[in-house]
Amino acid sequence: MTTRYLDDLALGEVFTTNGLTLTEAEIIDFAWRYDPQPFHLDDEAAAQTYFGRLSASGWHTGSMAMRMMVDNMKVNQQAGLGSPGIDELRWLKPVYPGDTLRIESEVLSKRRSKSRPEMGMFQGRTTVFNQHDVAVMTMVSTGLIRVRNPEAAED
Amino acid sequence: MTTRYLDDLALGEVFTTNGLTLTEAEIIDFAWRYDPQPFHLDDEAAAQTYFGRLSASGWHTGSMAMRMMVDNMKVNQQAGLGSPGIDELRWLKPVYPGDTLRIESEVLSKRRSKSRPEMGMFQGRTTVFNQHDVAVMTMVSTGLIRVRNPEAAED
Repeated sequence: MTTRYLDDLALGEVFTTNGLTLTEAEIIDFAWRYDPQPFHLDDEAAAQTYFGRLSASGWHTGSMAMRMMVDNMKVNQQAGLGSPGIDELRWLKPVYPGDTLRIESEVLSKRRSKSRPEMGMFQGRTTVFNQHDVAVMTMVSTGLIRVRNPEAAED
Repeated sequence: MTTRYLDDLALGEVFTTNGLTLTEAEIIDFAWRYDPQPFHLDDEAAAQTYFGRLSASGWHTGSMAMRMMVDNMKVNQQAGLGSPGIDELRWLKPVYPGDTLRIESEVLSKRRSKSRPEMGMFQGRTTVFNQHDVAVMTMVSTGLIRVRNPEAAED
């Protein structure tokens, strides 16, 4: 398989990934480090809230989505260069211990950088699904990626 | 100190926090779990990119910002109920091993929920600064929070 550059991303193309499962221990460990709100630490505290029971930090869900995107980039040898940011992120449903997440990510747009001809950027819409095929998170974000031949003029 | 509810948030109010320092070990540990791109794992690989040297995953920076927000909410006993999402996030500058981050967060707007009178939502703009007072990340996000007296009519 050859490396995928900006040139190789097709508008409307959808990437899918294998699943990753969050354990209760991982959810609590992440929460103590980064988001120690009661509903991310304890079933009893969560029962008093919208979450109903212990559920993952939204930052944990987002980080898991990133991991699945990176795993996919590696499979495809995509020449990623990082990201300038997120344009919209929605946490739609709680993520519970034992849930298996997977993503679908669609290329919405792409363009070559005018100031840095060796790279370009693309916007993608990523949806995180649980094992019941319920969307738990959506995100529109921008990625930076190399172009195949920086010397070549833009199309 | 008494609990802070929606009622107590003032538009334009700015929260500041103490700092948290990221070690190289934490950056690499986070990256292997959630964002194993070469520039988050290895100085040599990062030298070939915009980052210049090993730098933290943006999800790590965001998760650290969340931690500082939660610590601040605990100090203020703020009655937080989670978040439906992020409206805009920008990763502006790399975060390097040893950097000390702190945040400033401003209340942009607030309103009571029509469908769930026991709570409301507020929008905040959070800026993450490093020890050189350089903004490394900005985010506009929405938070859910209890109202003091759910039985009372809205203002």
